[in-house]
Amino acid sequence: MARQSMREEIVEAGLAQFHERGYNAAAVKDITDRAGVPKGSFYNHFESKEALAIVALKRYGDSTRMPDLADRSVEPVARIRGHFEFLRDQTVGAGVARGCMLGNFGTEIADHSEAIRETVHQGFVDWAGLLSAALAEGQEAGSVRADLDPDATARFLLSAWEGTLIQARAFKSADVFDSFFDLTFRSLLAV
Amino acid sequence: MARQSMREEIVEAGLAQFHERGYNAAAVKDITDRAGVPKGSFYNHFESKEALAIVALKRYGDSTRMPDLADRSVEPVARIRGHFEFLRDQTVGAGVARGCMLGNFGTEIADHSEAIRETVHQGFVDWAGLLSAALAEGQEAGSVRADLDPDATARFLLSAWEGTLIQARAFKSADVFDSFFDLTFRSLLAV
Repeated sequence: MARQSMREEIVEAGLAQFHERGYNAAAVKDITDRAGVPKGSFYNHFESKEALAIVALKRYGDSTRMPDLADRSVEPVARIRGHFEFLRDQTVGAGVARGCMLGNFGTEIADHSEAIRETVHQGFVDWAGLLSAALAEGQEAGSVRADLDPDATARFLLSAWEGTLIQARAFKSADVFDSFFDLTFRSLLAV
Repeated sequence: MARQSMREEIVEAGLAQFHERGYNAAAVKDITDRAGVPKGSFYNHFESKEALAIVALKRYGDSTRMPDLADRSVEPVARIRGHFEFLRDQTVGAGVARGCMLGNFGTEIADHSEAIRETVHQGFVDWAGLLSAALAEGQEAGSVRADLDPDATARFLLSAWEGTLIQARAFKSADVFDSFFDLTFRSLLAV
């Protein structure tokens, strides 16, 4: 039980450290210090920093309320909007910092770690699948433009979302979120 | 003259190393090795790795043919499309890798270096300004939807572009560029 708890502390500390600092700037020692565990204990639980990063990235996904995108009790467009508002509030609440770990690892590490690249890839596939299904529901309900391909539109909106986070952090301002919401909901999806 | 040439070699090597590896993974020693100059010479030309990164980022901007966005000899929508096709070909030509240095530094470093954040910020401001002007020209010419706000649309398209690069690298595939071009030109901008 003690070992499980220490592993869990390392995962949580790794997630926080990777999200704040990025992959390369987060040393194993920083992570074990943050977890309050001896550095030597790290390798009892993880083979490498890369192995922890993959677990942390999946854990990050669990914090983003993805299943809400499939909640049929909410009208599809309101559901999609609420999803991105929740994610916006996470970044704004952190001081317009940190952004999305999928995007962060995608830019920093995907070219250099095949295992992390595959995890980021799968994260985008799962996310786009949920968003595409919600868009298709919106089309059936008549609240999303019928001529849009849901899969291509989902990928495009995730791109727009990731780039919005980059610009928000670069400008240290939440203004660019307004462009995202206006263009997405008023200009692109609206019937 | 020799000193100027050595500085230039360090800038070029720094640009290449930062673009391939990111900021934190590019050590000064890697950069001077790549430039074929002694490590000690670095600090004769740059106060810090951060100072070089700012020069390299501006140099990167010079490689992206931004002024083409203002070339009034080309029809505005064709000009915008050509701009993104050129950038796509840079990333695809590198093996669907490297992406955009503004986006890379934006995700990896903007939260941690105020000087780099400001340079990334200014890069996006300049880029969005050129794109916005081209969009407004397209509206005057009747080839871009008149109800779009050019500034907000420019920021949104740069977001979509940056996220498209993230997904392309994460998928190691150029497919996502099709979503970008289809949604942008067929669904969003088209009259």
